Amino acid sequence: MAVYTEVSDDELQAFMADYDLGEVISCKGIAEGVENSNYILQTEKGPFILTLYERRVNPADLPFFIELMEHLARTGVKCPVPVHARDGKALRTLCGRPAAIISFLNGMWPRRIEAWHCFELGQALAEMHVAGRSFPRTRANDLSLAGWRALYDKVGNTAEQVEAGLHGLIGRELDDLAAVWPTDLPSGVIHADLFPDNVFFMGKRCSGLIDFYFACTDFLAYDVAVCLNAWCFEADGALNVTKAARLFAGYQAVRPLAASERRAFPALARGAAMRFLLTRLYDWVNTPAGALVKPKDPREYLRKLKFHRGVTDIAAYGLG
Amino acid sequence: MAVYTEVSDDELQAFMADYDLGEVISCKGIAEGVENSNYILQTEKGPFILTLYERRVNPADLPFFIELMEHLARTGVKCPVPVHARDGKALRTLCGRPAAIISFLNGMWPRRIEAWHCFELGQALAEMHVAGRSFPRTRANDLSLAGWRALYDKVGNTAEQVEAGLHGLIGRELDDLAAVWPTDLPSGVIHADLFPDNVFFMGKRCSGLIDFYFACTDFLAYDVAVCLNAWCFEADGALNVTKAARLFAGYQAVRPLAASERRAFPALARGAAMRFLLTRLYDWVNTPAGALVKPKDPREYLRKLKFHRGVTDIAAYGLG
Repeated sequence: MAVYTEVSDDELQAFMADYDLGEVISCKGIAEGVENSNYILQTEKGPFILTLYERRVNPADLPFFIELMEHLARTGVKCPVPVHARDGKALRTLCGRPAAIISFLNGMWPRRIEAWHCFELGQALAEMHVAGRSFPRTRANDLSLAGWRALYDKVGNTAEQVEAGLHGLIGRELDDLAAVWPTDLPSGVIHADLFPDNVFFMGKRCSGLIDFYFACTDFLAYDVAVCLNAWCFEADGALNVTKAARLFAGYQAVRPLAASERRAFPALARGAAMRFLLTRLYDWVNTPAGALVKPKDPREYLRKLKFHRGVTDIAAYGLG
Repeated sequence: MAVYTEVSDDELQAFMADYDLGEVISCKGIAEGVENSNYILQTEKGPFILTLYERRVNPADLPFFIELMEHLARTGVKCPVPVHARDGKALRTLCGRPAAIISFLNGMWPRRIEAWHCFELGQALAEMHVAGRSFPRTRANDLSLAGWRALYDKVGNTAEQVEAGLHGLIGRELDDLAAVWPTDLPSGVIHADLFPDNVFFMGKRCSGLIDFYFACTDFLAYDVAVCLNAWCFEADGALNVTKAARLFAGYQAVRPLAASERRAFPALARGAAMRFLLTRLYDWVNTPAGALVKPKDPREYLRKLKFHRGVTDIAAYGLG
C-alpha cells in the first residue's frame, strides 16, 4: 500500500490550474503500488491517475518512462498516456516531487490467475516488444548482473537472517549466472516488472499494461521469464505448465522466439528469479518493523530460482 | 490506511450482477479510512464507493446507518446515499462481509483547516441535526460514559506505557465526568466522528459529510464539542479561538444553542476529549508492531482534555 505524500487541496488546485481538465471533483489516494504515490483524480473531464514519484525512481529516468508510454500508446499498445499541461509538459512538480497526470486505464488486475490470463498476457507483452522496436531512447537495466551483485554486497550476511546458508548460495549462483548469461539475444524495450497488478483485464481480454517505471533496454526474452515467474507458479511453489504453455503461445502468436532465446530461457528464468529474490531480500532486511509497507517474502523467489537451476531445456516450461 | 479485504474480479462481477450499474470499469482500494475497506468503483454509470464493513462495525447496526444516510439525503443533507440492488436491498454480502455501494460525494477533505472551513462545518452539522429530528430510529451511543469506563478497564495499567500517572488521571477524570455529565440536553442523531477527513469541500463551500458509522442518538451539543476538538486546535496544542468562534457561528446560523447547552459545553468538550483519548489509547496499546495501520497518538487528546478541565465558561471558546 502506497501513498507517501499527502497532497493538500490548495497545492492540488494550484497544480491543476496548469491543465485543461476542468474542476477537480475528487482526489483519493490509492492503496496499490509501493514505489510511488498514486491518486484517482476525478475531474470534469473524467477520471485520471495522478502520480507523485517517490524515493526509488531516479528523476533523470522520468523522461524515458513518460516518452515510452507516449510512444507505445501511439503505436497501438494499450497503456496509460501522460496528459500534457497547457505549456506542453507532462512532467511537472507537486509537493516538491516530480509528478504527472496520466490517463485512466479501464480494467482490473486479476487476483486469481487462470490459464487464459497468461495467453492474453503473452500477447500483450509481445505487442509491447514489437511496438518498442521503433522507440529511439534506451535505458540500461540497472537490475541485471552488475546490479544484482551490488544488491548482494549491500545485503551481505544479513541474508542469513532469512535462511541459513543463503548468503553463500546467492554468491555461488551469481557466479554461475555470470558464466551462463547470454550476450547476443534480441534486445529492446522491456517492461521488466509485469506482475499481475500491472496487467488489467475487462471481461476475458487484456485491457492494458501499467507501471512502466522499471522499463529499460534488455533481452526481450528476459521479460517473458519475469512473467513466467510472476504468473505461472502456484502458491505451493510448483510451476503450472499449462499456464506457462499459454504464456508462450500468446507471446509467439505475435512474436515467435528465436532458437537462441529458447536455448537461453532457463538461464534467463534463473536470472529473473535472482532479480526479485535480491530486491525482496534487500527490502526484507531493510524495512523497519512497523513500516506501513509490508515487505514480500524473498523465499518465494528462492524456491523459483532453485526450480530453474534444475531445468536444462525449455520443454520443461511447456514449450515444445 | 485501510483496505483489509482483497476483492477478486470474479467475486466483484457476481456481486455487481445484482445492480443496475452497467459494466464495472475499475475498482481500486482507497488509502483512507481505518474501520472499513473502501474502493472507488468506476462503472458505466459513473463512480461509486464500495464499502466492505470490517471488524469494528456491528452488523446489527448497519440498517441504522444505511437508513440514516437515506433519511438525511432525502431531507436535503449533502451526504452519500446507498444504492439499491434490483431486489431493493442496499445492504448485501461480498467476500463474506456485509457490503454496500454508496453514491460518490464530490469534494476533498481539507488538509489545512482555515476558519472558513469551521463556519461551513458548523452549518452542515446543524443542518444534519435538524434533519435528524424526523429520523425514527435510535441507537445508543456506546462510546459515552459507560463505554469510556469499559475501555478504561480494558486498557488498565498499560496506560502507564504512554505516560506515567495516566491510569490514575483518567480514573479520576471519569469520576468527575460522571458527576458533571448533563442529563437533559436537546438530543437526536449525532455524527459523533466528524473529523476533517469526513467533511468534503468544493471551492469555498462544504460539499457534504461522509462516514456515518459512529452515528448514534445523543446530545446534539456533544457533536459540536467533538468538532471543536477535531477542527479548532493547532498543532502546538493551543485552541484557535477564531476557528472555534466560526464553528459556533456557522452552527447557530442554523440552530441556536440553548442556554443549557452553553452551560454544559465545557463538560461536553471534556467528555469528547475523553472519548478519543480512550479509543486512541486502546488502539495504541493494542496495535501490534508492524501493523499496516499506524495508531494515532493519544497524548494529543490528553492535552485537549486538560485544556477543557480548566474552562468554566463557554466564552473561553469564543462564544459570547
